[in-house]
Amino acid sequence: MKILESTIEIAVRFSETDAMGVVWHGNYLKFFEDAREKFGEEHGLEYLDVYGEGFYTPIVKSDINHKASVYYGQKVLVKATLEYHQASKIVFKYVVTNRATNAIAATGSTTQVFLGVKDNLLALIKPPFILDWEAKQNWKEV
Amino acid sequence: MKILESTIEIAVRFSETDAMGVVWHGNYLKFFEDAREKFGEEHGLEYLDVYGEGFYTPIVKSDINHKASVYYGQKVLVKATLEYHQASKIVFKYVVTNRATNAIAATGSTTQVFLGVKDNLLALIKPPFILDWEAKQNWKEV
Amino acid sequence: MKILESTIEIAVRFSETDAMGVVWHGNYLKFFEDAREKFGEEHGLEYLDVYGEGFYTPIVKSDINHKASVYYGQKVLVKATLEYHQASKIVFKYVVTNRATNAIAATGSTTQVFLGVKDNLLALIKPPFILDWEAKQNWKEV
Amino acid sequence: MKILESTIEIAVRFSETDAMGVVWHGNYLKFFEDAREKFGEEHGLEYLDVYGEGFYTPIVKSDINHKASVYYGQKVLVKATLEYHQASKIVFKYVVTNRATNAIAATGSTTQVFLGVKDNLLALIKPPFILDWEAKQNWKEV
Repeated sequence: MKILESTIEIAVRFSETDAMGVVWHGNYLKFFEDAREKFGEEHGLEYLDVYGEGFYTPIVKSDINHKASVYYGQKVLVKATLEYHQASKIVFKYVVTNRATNAIAATGSTTQVFLGVKDNLLALIKPPFILDWEAKQNWKEV
Repeated sequence: MKILESTIEIAVRFSETDAMGVVWHGNYLKFFEDAREKFGEEHGLEYLDVYGEGFYTPIVKSDINHKASVYYGQKVLVKATLEYHQASKIVFKYVVTNRATNAIAATGSTTQVFLGVKDNLLALIKPPFILDWEAKQNWKEV
Repeated sequence: MKILESTIEIAVRFSETDAMGVVWHGNYLKFFEDAREKFGEEHGLEYLDVYGEGFYTPIVKSDINHKASVYYGQKVLVKATLEYHQASKIVFKYVVTNRATNAIAATGSTTQVFLGVKDNLLALIKPPFILDWEAKQNWKEV
Repeated sequence: MKILESTIEIAVRFSETDAMGVVWHGNYLKFFEDAREKFGEEHGLEYLDVYGEGFYTPIVKSDINHKASVYYGQKVLVKATLEYHQASKIVFKYVVTNRATNAIAATGSTTQVFLGVKDNLLALIKPPFILDWEAKQNWKEV
């Protein structure tokens, strides 16, 4: 199966560090968001496009595993890989690497669903525009 | 002139500290927001009421003066005082006191304007509901 | 087994909402932190005490499950329950309830480890002060 | 007089928007920080260098003037210009331009002082390393 992924480099903000001198654990969800954003840009699946198709894609689940600290002044690479699922959801896996040490700082995942902008209802099957997008990417289970 | 003010106690969050071990300077704008919120509750001028009257009240100006650091584990008192203005705007002054030391940690101010929810236009004169609210508070220049 | 838990009420900040009009998903980790803090206060296990004993307790793992949105102007109750573990780690489970609707907004968990302040080494067995604290709480597996 | 400035492009994060659908006003201080950072990189005056010289440079004053909203999906250019001062302080002026509209979104300024890492004392006159840096930049009042 084709692997769909994107990687973004992020310079850690001073405001993102905490009194232990490292990036506050919750800020990794912002880094994941940046990587999803980059994925959207590179693979033609941007938030505003999805919204244009009548859907929000709220996060319903997220997890982070911290492996090593990231300090102020360091940069990280965040790789987002889309996982194929039959079900009507979007699952990304993330790997955050500290550029200063080449060590993995964190891994994680997020799950999003499709929610109708007008009716606020959950799309129980994949919306047609997503099936089209998957076909265009030659993105399928094997 | 009557003084309209409200005070709120805030326990500093660990996520609000930075690598210098103190509350990151930008987070004081969140403390100001909490104090405005408390003011709205206590004086009957809540964000959602204002929205119900057809207005947003975006911040157009803010400033902060830092006097002393606040450390994790400390609590602050934030006092918001409404300043009377003839012009169609809302101006709050703030004083942030560190409860652990009784020292003033910061002062500041914010200016908000009235923006129509429907037309996105600036209200150049005070909206009637604000004049009513001021009358009810016996809130006027002397 | 005795259940050790604490609950805190949090008024959602305007700055914590996002362009979908609801609390941004990552901010729940701040709510979890507030609940841990409250737990520390109520059960005598505060961050600064732990630091005084020579340990940091960094988060190594966290997850959030979102069940329903929380809107600006609403308050949430966050309950943190400590889970008993033989291993040298601190595991909290969280339930976030929307006070306006009584619906569960989110659940989640965090895992913390003990890291020596001086040597930066992981404590592979529970530090003595924690065993003392557990004994005092009559906190044990049954 | 030579003008010392740096400009950085920032993609607005979804988590930085608020329930009015625009970037939350306080987040501009993060954009200012990014621009200072860029300035430090480009002009050889990085936070960690300054720390290495024995000084913190905490923000003691900041202000923001908002001119127009920035929406999710938009990018901003933030220009930081260093202002020459005889006094022992660092003053930056900022201009935030919305790339999507070319409109100025905000302007602002920050003032930093030199605080000794060891003694926590304010440097009432410019530290020697700053005078050296100014000389190297041919940075002086005329």
